[in-house]
This record gives sequence, C-alpha cells and structure tokens, in this order.
Amino acid sequence: MIEQKKIVIIGGVAGGATAAARLRRLDEHAHIVLVERGADISFANCGLPYYIGGIIEKRESLFVTTPIAFNKRYNIDIRTKTEARRIDPVKKEVELYSFEKDKTYIESYDKLILSPGASPIRPPIPGIEDPRIFTLRSIPDTDKIKAYIHEKMPKRALVVGGGYIGLEMAESLHHAGLRVTICEKLEQVMMPLDFEMAALVHQHMRIRNIQFYLKDGISRFVTYPDHIEAVLESGKVIQTDMVIFSIGVRPEVELAKAAGLRLGETGGIWVDEYLRSSDEHIYAIGDAIETTHLVTKEKFLVRLAGPANKQGRIVADNIYGKQEKYIGSLGTGIVRVFDIVVGSTGANEKMLKKAGIPYRASLTHSANHAGYYPGAVPVSIKLLFTPDEGKVLGAQVVGLEGVDKRVDVFATAIMSGATVADLEELDLAYAPPYGSAKDPVNIAGYVAHNILKNDVEAVYWSDVDRVCEDGKCFILDVRTPKECELGMIKGAVNIPVDELRNRLAEIPKDRRVLVYCQVGLRGYVAWKILKQHGFDARNLSGGYKTYEIVTGKQENDDVYEYDRITVSDQIIKVKPSA
Amino acid sequence: MIEQKKIVIIGGVAGGATAAARLRRLDEHAHIVLVERGADISFANCGLPYYIGGIIEKRESLFVTTPIAFNKRYNIDIRTKTEARRIDPVKKEVELYSFEKDKTYIESYDKLILSPGASPIRPPIPGIEDPRIFTLRSIPDTDKIKAYIHEKMPKRALVVGGGYIGLEMAESLHHAGLRVTICEKLEQVMMPLDFEMAALVHQHMRIRNIQFYLKDGISRFVTYPDHIEAVLESGKVIQTDMVIFSIGVRPEVELAKAAGLRLGETGGIWVDEYLRSSDEHIYAIGDAIETTHLVTKEKFLVRLAGPANKQGRIVADNIYGKQEKYIGSLGTGIVRVFDIVVGSTGANEKMLKKAGIPYRASLTHSANHAGYYPGAVPVSIKLLFTPDEGKVLGAQVVGLEGVDKRVDVFATAIMSGATVADLEELDLAYAPPYGSAKDPVNIAGYVAHNILKNDVEAVYWSDVDRVCEDGKCFILDVRTPKECELGMIKGAVNIPVDELRNRLAEIPKDRRVLVYCQVGLRGYVAWKILKQHGFDARNLSGGYKTYEIVTGKQENDDVYEYDRITVSDQIIKVKPSA
Repeated sequence: MIEQKKIVIIGGVAGGATAAARLRRLDEHAHIVLVERGADISFANCGLPYYIGGIIEKRESLFVTTPIAFNKRYNIDIRTKTEARRIDPVKKEVELYSFEKDKTYIESYDKLILSPGASPIRPPIPGIEDPRIFTLRSIPDTDKIKAYIHEKMPKRALVVGGGYIGLEMAESLHHAGLRVTICEKLEQVMMPLDFEMAALVHQHMRIRNIQFYLKDGISRFVTYPDHIEAVLESGKVIQTDMVIFSIGVRPEVELAKAAGLRLGETGGIWVDEYLRSSDEHIYAIGDAIETTHLVTKEKFLVRLAGPANKQGRIVADNIYGKQEKYIGSLGTGIVRVFDIVVGSTGANEKMLKKAGIPYRASLTHSANHAGYYPGAVPVSIKLLFTPDEGKVLGAQVVGLEGVDKRVDVFATAIMSGATVADLEELDLAYAPPYGSAKDPVNIAGYVAHNILKNDVEAVYWSDVDRVCEDGKCFILDVRTPKECELGMIKGAVNIPVDELRNRLAEIPKDRRVLVYCQVGLRGYVAWKILKQHGFDARNLSGGYKTYEIVTGKQENDDVYEYDRITVSDQIIKVKPSA
Repeated sequence: MIEQKKIVIIGGVAGGATAAARLRRLDEHAHIVLVERGADISFANCGLPYYIGGIIEKRESLFVTTPIAFNKRYNIDIRTKTEARRIDPVKKEVELYSFEKDKTYIESYDKLILSPGASPIRPPIPGIEDPRIFTLRSIPDTDKIKAYIHEKMPKRALVVGGGYIGLEMAESLHHAGLRVTICEKLEQVMMPLDFEMAALVHQHMRIRNIQFYLKDGISRFVTYPDHIEAVLESGKVIQTDMVIFSIGVRPEVELAKAAGLRLGETGGIWVDEYLRSSDEHIYAIGDAIETTHLVTKEKFLVRLAGPANKQGRIVADNIYGKQEKYIGSLGTGIVRVFDIVVGSTGANEKMLKKAGIPYRASLTHSANHAGYYPGAVPVSIKLLFTPDEGKVLGAQVVGLEGVDKRVDVFATAIMSGATVADLEELDLAYAPPYGSAKDPVNIAGYVAHNILKNDVEAVYWSDVDRVCEDGKCFILDVRTPKECELGMIKGAVNIPVDELRNRLAEIPKDRRVLVYCQVGLRGYVAWKILKQHGFDARNLSGGYKTYEIVTGKQENDDVYEYDRITVSDQIIKVKPSA
C-alpha cells in the first residue's frame, strides 16, 4: 500500500489552483486540500476591470471553474470561505477558520503551498473609509463597484494610481460612460516604461480628453452625501462621485512571517530556486513571493498571472521529486489604455541604473505593417542593450496595433540571450497585413546595432538642451518644409535631406551639427552624408517625434513618417478613433 | 584623392534597392548604377494582389519610391527599362540594353550585384497563351489584370495553384466580387504546412463556399470568345472568365549561367555565406539565389521579401570590407486566406523526412486570448522538435486571430536554438485582450515537453485507424455527451472525464485504451488517471478536432473547447464572419 501524501494549498486563485490540478495529475492518490478565503476559486482576476466596464458582459464568465466542477475533475478537497490563521511548521499543521461554520480547526500536511497573493494598499488618508472609495482585488470588490455604478449611476470617477490596474480601470469606467480623472504621484504613468515612452501614453490620454494629474498625490478626501472631494497634495481639488484606489499592492506575508518563514529584501516571502521557503516542507508561489529579475538578477515582486501559473506547476513537480527551477521573470506586461497599447519586457533604465548595469538605448518609430496596406499605424520601440556585445536588456513598445506581438518577440529574444545583431537577423513573418519586409523589431535591431558599432553617433531627447546650449550646436532639421511647419526644435535650420548634398556649404564646419528628422531614419542618412564630408555630427535618436512628445509640444495629431525602405517624404496622419 | 568605386546592381526591387541605399550610406563617393528591366524600382511586390482586389485602393501606394525620389535621396544612377544581357566576368563588364533607346551599351564594374528575382512558371499547356490567363509578378502584370476586371467585369475566376500567391489572389478576387475556384495538383494547399494543418485551411474554404479541387492539375484550356474552359487532369471541366496561373516561380538564372557562374543543386545561383557568387567580384541576392535552410541545413530557394532585404544590406557591407555572413533562412511565411491566417516557420514534416532529421510532433488548439474576454478564437499549433533534447525544429500556426504573433515568437525561439522546455518558460505579455496566463505558445511547449518526457503517450490522427483496427483498442471519448452528439470516432465509448474515476470498471484492462477529447487537454487528464490505475492508454494528440478535420467529417461550425486552466466542459462555437 502506497502511503497517501497530504498537501495543503493556501489560496485558490491562479497559482494555487494550477498547483492543485498539477498535483492531481501527478498523483491520483494524494489528499489535496485547497483553502480559499473567498467563496470562489480560480476566478479571472485580470478580467475584473473589463467586467466592471461592461466589456465582459456576464458575471459567470469570470469563473474559470467552480469548486464543484474543479472537484469533479481533479478530486480536490476544497475549503472555500476558509482562512488559514496559523502555521505550525514543527508539527506540520495549519489552523483553519471556517467563516460559514465559525469554527477553527487543525489540518496537518506533508507539504504546504502558500499562494496568498497580494492585497491593495490603502494608506490612512483622511476620508479613505468612505464606501464610495474602492479598491479592486476580489469578486466581492467587483460586485460592490458594479452595484454602485448600477444603483447610483455616478457620472465621474477618480482613479488614484496610474499603474496597470489604474489604467485598466480608467479605460473600463470610461467605457461604462463615466468621466474619468487619473491622479498619479509620480511624474509618469506606467512605471515599467521610461519617461519618454510614458509620454506617448500621456499624449494619448490628452487626445482622448482624459483628465490626469502627474506628480500629485492625494492628501485627503472630503466626503459629502452627494459627492467626494479629493484634495491633492498640490492643493487642487477634484470633485468626483467615486474613487478607485489603485496605488499598488502589498504581498500577504503575515501568515508566513508569523510562522517564522524568512522574508526577502523586498518584503515578499523568500523562496529558493525550487520555490521552497526557508522551511523545507513549505513552498510559496505567486504575488506574495520575491523572485529574481532575469535581466538585473535583482530581487523583485512580480504580480502577474503568467509567472504564478508557471510557479504552480513547478511546485507540484518539485513536491513529486523533480528538481525544476523557477528561473525568474522578465516582468513582461501589457495594458491597453483606450486605443493605445503599452507593453514592456526586461529591464528599463531605472532598473538598470539601480542595478548598476551599463547600457545604451535606441528609439524607433516604425509602421506596424506594410505602409502601403490600409491601416498602418506607428509602433514606438525603446530598446536597451549592453554597450559591449549589444545583449538585449529590455524593450518598451507603445502603439495602436501590433504591440503585443513585438513585446513577445523581444521577451523571447531576451530569454534566449539575444543581441541587437540577432534582432536584425530575425526571420519574422511578413505579409502586408501583418508586418513589413523589415519588421519594427528588425529596424530596432538595425538602429541599436548602428549605435553599438558607432555607425551612427546618437544623441537622446534628454541631451538636446544640454548639447545645444549657448549655440554650441548647429541644429539641422532634414525634414520637408511641410513637416517643419508643424514644429521644429528651437533654433533649427531646415535643409531637407534630399537637398543636403547640394547645400553642404550652408553648414558651418567649426560647430557640431545636431541633425534630426521625424523618427530618425532620414537623420541617419543625413548623418552619413555629413560624416563623410568631414562634419562632426550627431543624430537625434527617435527624432522630432520623441522630442516633441516628451517636451509636450505636440498635443494633437500624430504626424508620422512613413516607414519606407528608402524615401520617407510622405507623412501620414494617424487619427485615433473617436 | 580616393578612388571611386563603381558598383552595378541588376534588379531594382527589394534586395537590389536596399543594397543601393546601403551602399550609398557607406560611401558618398561611389558610382552606383541600378539597372531595372521594368519602369519602376522598389515597388510593393507583396501588395499586388491586394491592389487587384481593391483592398489597397490607390495604384500609387504600390510604389515604395520612384526613380526620381530615390536618386534625390541616395544619388543613384538609375537605369530603368534597361535589361542586362550579358556579363563578362573577366573584363568586369556588363552589356545593357535600353528598351527606350533601343540601344545596347557596355558598363564596367568593380563589383556587380545580381538581384534578378524569379519569374512565374508557365508550362506549355494547350491554350495557356490566351490573354485571359494571367500570371502575376510585376506592375504591368497587375495593370493588365486590373484593367481586365474593370473592363470585362468577369464573374468567375480560376486560380491554379494553392500557394501564397494563389491564395492571396483567391482572396483578393473574392473581395473584388468574383466567384473563385482554386485548383491544386497536390493533395493540399499551402505546402509549408503539413496535411492536418492544411486541412484547417480546406475546412475554412469550404465554410466560405470557395470551390476547390485538390490532386488535380490542368491538362488544357479550351478558349471561347466569352469564356475559358479549364479541363482538369481528372477530366472535370471548369468554366471561368479568367485564370490566375500561380503554380510557382523559377529563379532567373540565365544571365548568371551564361556568364559561367555556378548554379546550386536547387537551380538557384550559388553563393557562399558572404553572398558572393563563384566569381569574386559578383554577389547575388534575393529570389534568384540558393540559400541554406536554418533548420535542415539543406539548400533551398526562398522567395520572400524579408530575406531579400537582409541580403541586400549584407552584400553592401561586404563590398565595403565587412565579413558579414548571411546565416540562412527559416522560410518564415504568413498568408491570410479569407478570415483564416496561416503561418509557418522552420521545417515541416516533409522537409525533416527529406533531410533525415528525426523528430516528434505535438498538436494543440488553444484560445488566442483569455477565454472569458470577448472574441476568443482558437489558434491551432503544430510543433516539431527533436526526440532527444526537444529542440524546436518548426512550427505551423492556423487560426483567425493572433497567428502572426505566435509565428514570430516561434521563429525567434528557433533562431535562438530554444527547446520545448524553453517555450514553457517564455514570459509573454498577458492581458485579457492579448493572451492568456498560459499563452498558446506556452501550452504548445507544455504538451510537447510532456510528449518528450513520456509524461503522456501520444497517438496522432494518422495512427488512429491502424492502432484501432480489428478492435485492438478500446476507444474512449472523455468529452461531454453534448459534444459527442456532434460526432465521435467510430466505435468509441463515451465516459466524460469527470465521471472517469467512478467508472473505471467499465474499461477493459486487457486492451489498450485510446483516449481522446476535443483538443487533447481532458484526454491528457484522463490518460493520467488511467495510467495511474494500471491501464495501457494513449492520448490522441490534437484531439477529435484534428481527427475530424483531417478525415473531413466536419464541414460546419468549429466546435471548440474553451482553454480553461482546469475545466473545459464548456464549448464555444466560433462562427466565421459572413
């Protein structure tokens, strides 16, 4: 007779449910107990904002499974509405409390898996206890928000925090017909992005008439029967009918901490590469654990469903004698903000600076598919890579279409240790509706590789003011006069690239030349011409498009240079849909 | 004074134009001559079908650049309407003929780049000279077809050949309002796919009421004033108003051959890894050359714009002293066939067999994004991998949405030497509109890795009849009764997976059990249960979905099992749009 193994899992969403299913597939005979504080297991966490906004119509769609169905399929001993209150690692016991039965009882285990997740941060701001100020984590949270919108028909909503959930909620509430305001304490939304890429999001929100405040936190809420006043740290006052508080989450580590389990430097539960905690019989997975960033090798907290699911599977395997490592995460993420899609993978500049990793950067704007095929729209890419061999460290992608594809390609490339030269060579699928003979990924690779080889000397938007102060530079705009009418860098002189060879005499030889075009391609051609004629030139990476967005000089149409192999005089206007 | 280099390029589309632009960027002072037989350079080859069909509305959109604009930008000596008639490698001269001036003249070169492309095959079938029987390669071909449709308003079109161009033309003509028939000599369309994946395309064409004939070539055309009769080899007769002949292309090697340049085993111009021909001063690129398949290492002819562009850039660099290698191609390709998208990268079974490379295969059908988010549709993936370490050899992807993304991820993975275990770990971007916590790529990796580790014993659709003959197998359908009503494998017994543990007594222990579900996931769960209870079981890879499509038993709706983490009882119907 085989000894029956008993495994208790705390937390029945994402990682916890995946672990349970995998455990059963590995062992028909184990006793698997799944403990969940809420009434539901394995619900669609990431779908909650879309249900609130009405894009997902049916509440039942949110349930990936039910306790009954899950038990039928996998023969799991499911304890919903049950909270784990204490772990005794010595006795290998966990104290459970049933809300329904108001009863505390002890459950022993051979192996314990902690998958408690993370809870929204709700700081003690005056007024925050008002029931019209919501956080979003669970189905009950969702039901409350949905009921409030349905019953009270609020017209205005304030979203505090411009991260993934904040922006998804902003979009969803906008979709539900509310007038949405966003308030973010930092200088930008979407911290996985560097500033100039976040500026594309800011620009898009301006176009969509979304009111937002940056570098401004909430100092207090003043609540009235018919509305709420949010008083910002700047003193500004926002009147609203409801608030979504989404400034971040905190790993639920109380249980682990009380049991004497080690916590990591970032405050998450510490685990080894096999996802085992400091107690050999306790594993931990999901939003509550500290994991390793694959690029920086620094510890970080990742709150994404993909890693949680992968970890659930690995833990189950390791309990059954395998030695599978969780290699860490790139933190790959994506979010749609109205019409624009924002994705990132690997490290950004802030992370690289913190980790002391040297890097170089490239900025490109290319069309998501062949420019001659209807519907081409720009995809902006920031690439970070090592200054020696050009190993890709991170990528940020912003655009209207085709963003998810490029993020996934970059994620795959980074995980395989690819260099920017490898990106050039990638043999990607091209047909006019789907890409270009030179995909935006290839182009990003070309530009980054040029920078790496010093085949072009690049200057970044953030350097322009410094490089150009006191007239040290001759600023050369090589776009067409028509493009220049819509705005130029202050002090620039316009010589279209196609006239440059005949007008070299107009450019002083004793000053450095800062050359730029709309996105950087014609600037590169011009740089090549100037360099070979003995000028000391620099090309502006990302071109005027990046510069004007960052400096806030453009708030209307996205004037965009066609990604043609050779000639880029033609500009197309991309109007966001209403 | 620097010596001026003179470079002549034969062929001004894709690779040739790219090489010219790159050469100029590398050397302001070179004399660069671009020779093109047609009137246009650098036109959008891949866009021609879409212009004919009216999706691309303006003819001018097809011109990536014009000779005048290209010359302005890059100072290239462009000779359009000029044919290269002879190369003298000893004298380093090329004989050019100007159609406009009806004049032959000699041009010397320091380096010569051949980029002549490939021309459509037009076999000497009786009647093929009829002007209503078209091939498609150039702008004049396009103008002819467009004019014919505009003037004669044909109602019916026959497309001969079911490759990329044939299917794009079928879609485009359908879009233009013609009733399209396709005729393919082989047993399937889209040769880059293996048969069961092509069967998904056949199924889709049936749903869209596209008439098509497989395993049937054209024996002759009988032409009448008001229509054409295509007589098939089977004797069937198709009446039509126009024919697109797209059975393939042939590299244009006559010039190279006459100059004594070496041709490769496949008939393309032989080049070394630096893209140099057998003459040290002559390089060759694009559709006319023979290149190396990155997976099989066999020589093959690739007719895609991406490789041609990459080669153009490399050749220019190598002429200027670099030693850049063209590493070869995966032949990554994609095509939209009405609503369905078909992509592939790397090697298929036919290629692996030919090259004698051992492999294993997996078939998965998962949702393109979270099932609970509106609009989820199935993506079918066939993965081929080595039987030892599981290195990915090739991938085929068919579905309505999200196909291009998965093909590009697989292409990136294959180029980096990834294994199926690496696919499991890929940290891809997930938000409900874009993917799942377990992306179809991850799921393909899981299933393939399970097969590799013998964590499941798989049987393929092609084995079913053999494995099950003479009642050797107990065939077990673990879907719901509702799913079974729509069709089962002959002789199968239905026990839903959720009842299996309680009904094991109904399954004979002395026979092998072939278990299947809709796509393979529940079959895997059932296999795990059976195996642990001592049964000798096999799971059908790709499930009933693959089996029924291949055996032609399903011609209507695509009944599709929801990709849920755990429970997959729910089936959703995907109706193609009208």
